Amino acid sequence: MQTKKLNQTTVDRIAEFLERRATESVLAELEDFHPEDIAELLERLDLPYAKLLLYALPEEKAAEVIVNLDEERRAELLQDYSVRELAQEVIENLDSDDAADIISELPQERIHEVLQNLEDPDQAREIADLLSYEEDTAGSIMAKELVKVNASWKLMRCLREMRRQAEKVEQVHAIYVVDDEDRLLGTLSLKKLLTTSTKTPVAEVYDRKVISVTTDVHVEEVARLMRKYDLVVIPVVDKDGKLVGRITFDDVMDVMQEEAERDYQMASGLTQDVESDDSIFALSRARLPWLLIGMLGGVISSRVVDYFDISQYPEMAAFMPLIAATGGNVGVQSAALVVQSLANDSFNESIIKKLLKDLGVGLVTATVCASLMFAVTAALGKPFNLSITVSLALISVIVFAAMFGTFVPLTLNKFKIDPAVATGPFVTTTNDVIGLFIYFSVAKLIM
Amino acid sequence: MQTKKLNQTTVDRIAEFLERRATESVLAELEDFHPEDIAELLERLDLPYAKLLLYALPEEKAAEVIVNLDEERRAELLQDYSVRELAQEVIENLDSDDAADIISELPQERIHEVLQNLEDPDQAREIADLLSYEEDTAGSIMAKELVKVNASWKLMRCLREMRRQAEKVEQVHAIYVVDDEDRLLGTLSLKKLLTTSTKTPVAEVYDRKVISVTTDVHVEEVARLMRKYDLVVIPVVDKDGKLVGRITFDDVMDVMQEEAERDYQMASGLTQDVESDDSIFALSRARLPWLLIGMLGGVISSRVVDYFDISQYPEMAAFMPLIAATGGNVGVQSAALVVQSLANDSFNESIIKKLLKDLGVGLVTATVCASLMFAVTAALGKPFNLSITVSLALISVIVFAAMFGTFVPLTLNKFKIDPAVATGPFVTTTNDVIGLFIYFSVAKLIM
Repeated sequence: MQTKKLNQTTVDRIAEFLERRATESVLAELEDFHPEDIAELLERLDLPYAKLLLYALPEEKAAEVIVNLDEERRAELLQDYSVRELAQEVIENLDSDDAADIISELPQERIHEVLQNLEDPDQAREIADLLSYEEDTAGSIMAKELVKVNASWKLMRCLREMRRQAEKVEQVHAIYVVDDEDRLLGTLSLKKLLTTSTKTPVAEVYDRKVISVTTDVHVEEVARLMRKYDLVVIPVVDKDGKLVGRITFDDVMDVMQEEAERDYQMASGLTQDVESDDSIFALSRARLPWLLIGMLGGVISSRVVDYFDISQYPEMAAFMPLIAATGGNVGVQSAALVVQSLANDSFNESIIKKLLKDLGVGLVTATVCASLMFAVTAALGKPFNLSITVSLALISVIVFAAMFGTFVPLTLNKFKIDPAVATGPFVTTTNDVIGLFIYFSVAKLIM
Repeated sequence: MQTKKLNQTTVDRIAEFLERRATESVLAELEDFHPEDIAELLERLDLPYAKLLLYALPEEKAAEVIVNLDEERRAELLQDYSVRELAQEVIENLDSDDAADIISELPQERIHEVLQNLEDPDQAREIADLLSYEEDTAGSIMAKELVKVNASWKLMRCLREMRRQAEKVEQVHAIYVVDDEDRLLGTLSLKKLLTTSTKTPVAEVYDRKVISVTTDVHVEEVARLMRKYDLVVIPVVDKDGKLVGRITFDDVMDVMQEEAERDYQMASGLTQDVESDDSIFALSRARLPWLLIGMLGGVISSRVVDYFDISQYPEMAAFMPLIAATGGNVGVQSAALVVQSLANDSFNESIIKKLLKDLGVGLVTATVCASLMFAVTAALGKPFNLSITVSLALISVIVFAAMFGTFVPLTLNKFKIDPAVATGPFVTTTNDVIGLFIYFSVAKLIM
């Protein structure tokens, strides 16, 4: 009943079967595996074994597995396929959206050849159409396969037509109602179809309230709409309102996941989409840019320290890390809140209002932190002047960092730059430098 | 065709209608609004207006709107409802999972009373059952409404029974096949149902491969499975394999979103689930814990600096921020990678292997950063000893921070503590302190 799960023992056993070319045993072993798990297996196996296994799989299953592979492994495995094999063994077994995804990853010169080698000209046209939409738009991730009925039909005819159309569609999530020009009018619920007399015309029972997107809507907006309205599928229309495709929840879950990961990585100072099983080189390359920016901030900080001539007040050095760290932490907190509210909310307060609020939060937290530090420095027996300097600097740094952390992502967003860039090392680094500057400026006044 | 969207103008206009008690105009205005948008409207309106509006809505629509409200506003609005109104106007119009959610938020003494006031004893029993599962388990988020058919039936009977069952189910995502004991055997696809003769027995056409979860599986694992296998709905079984409920993709999208937000907030140093429109007090409370931990780190750093007596080498102070910041950045990068791989991957490498890899990444990045800093410090005309100290310290700090950032979340995970705790200020703060310690220790050896 339950599909089987992959573990290291299974991977090793299958590698051993493949070593002995015991293809039958492999196929028997994989009988109850989900294509997604077979894909994971192919990623875990050494490339030559993975190739052997993929060739051994039945054609349809192989195609499904290929869809589920990560891009790198897919490229490695598809390299040996002829254009004809690619077209007729892989692409022809796939839904239009998966087919378009895989084709779009091929080298430019192969794309055209693969499309020419498809036996069904309709499929070739559909895929070519999907490839024509700009990246990250609804058009680029939609699928062409859908079930639609004409508003003028009776339910009996719907059932008949649906039977015909269902052959081509993997899972029927919605039945769309269109007019004679193929313009989307609404949806027909399965419930209505099951519970109404088959002689009733569609026009009498379909639901006119349907949320759709046009082909040029950004995928993140599609994801936001589907999540907000709990949609399992959303129809895509062209600028004339004609139904051209549909996007299902699974594609949107992937978009959400990628978005969350990208924000998270950005906040953690990783500049490329990497995973812990990538190569040491790839991981280092993803880490260095932010580290170097952080170091640039460190060098500027060193100029600030030199400029104020720390050797005159060496006792100030002890609290430099505290000031810098607090500024950094506050800034990241503010920036993260903004990034999150921009991602969730279509309904935004004004920048001024947000800044005023952050001023309030900054003042509250600053007062708590500064009073505490005043007590601590006094307890540590630091000179009164230093205690005052540290406390006053803390207040200024926290308030400044809170507002800076709010201001930067809001501004980036205004200029259509991903506000998540503001989180992580960027705000931290800037706040480090400015924090130290404030610290020494306060010291100059007081000491 | 498209449902209408909410904006400030609409909110103001509706507030004005409500002011004049022009209920008819409000209802006309809201005719084409999705319940989700009406909920958002209720959150934006002042409480007295929100109450007026909610009372004006037709009962079923009001119930749907209540489900979509945020918890705080829902509590405010439901306060005026009698137990009887709650049961018969709200709960009876809802699916079991939504009903259980709303009831679970009520004060303990009202829960029992509401259940007693439900007219349908089956519904009361179902809700009470759902309330009995532990929080964050599959049982606690599943719904009881589903369409199931017996394996021994013919398709004709399935259609008839489904017609009956569909009355109670909002959207039919899957048809489950069970045996006489109600044990889950598989699923019947709509496609099969549409395209096979109605005289065929279910047993001949249903799909035996079905991924299910037991009631005690954690919701994050449910989300992982549904995302991995692209499931729109997953059946939930009890320990005997009996079908007891189902979880749909929309509940899982919410879980994913919450999970992503929690990790993101943790990485950004926010200790509570807050949003930018929460109160200044709530926002300050969510920020202070990490700030105070960061400050504790700062105080310890100050002890390190005092211990090594910075006044002997005041020129070292200039590079303290650089050393601390780099250590912090590297540590967060490592920790974030671990958190992400733990969240995505069920298939983990050993801790030793991960640490060795991070040692590699640490050495590569450290070499690049240290060489650069050596050149920069030389160019700034710093003494040779200081250049060497900064570079050597950087190497040690980066390598240490990389491994520490990997080790901590892996260890937390081993002890079943959320590894995301390790990201953000915690690792940064520790690395700040240890980084300074390394810096001064290297200096002692060299200068």
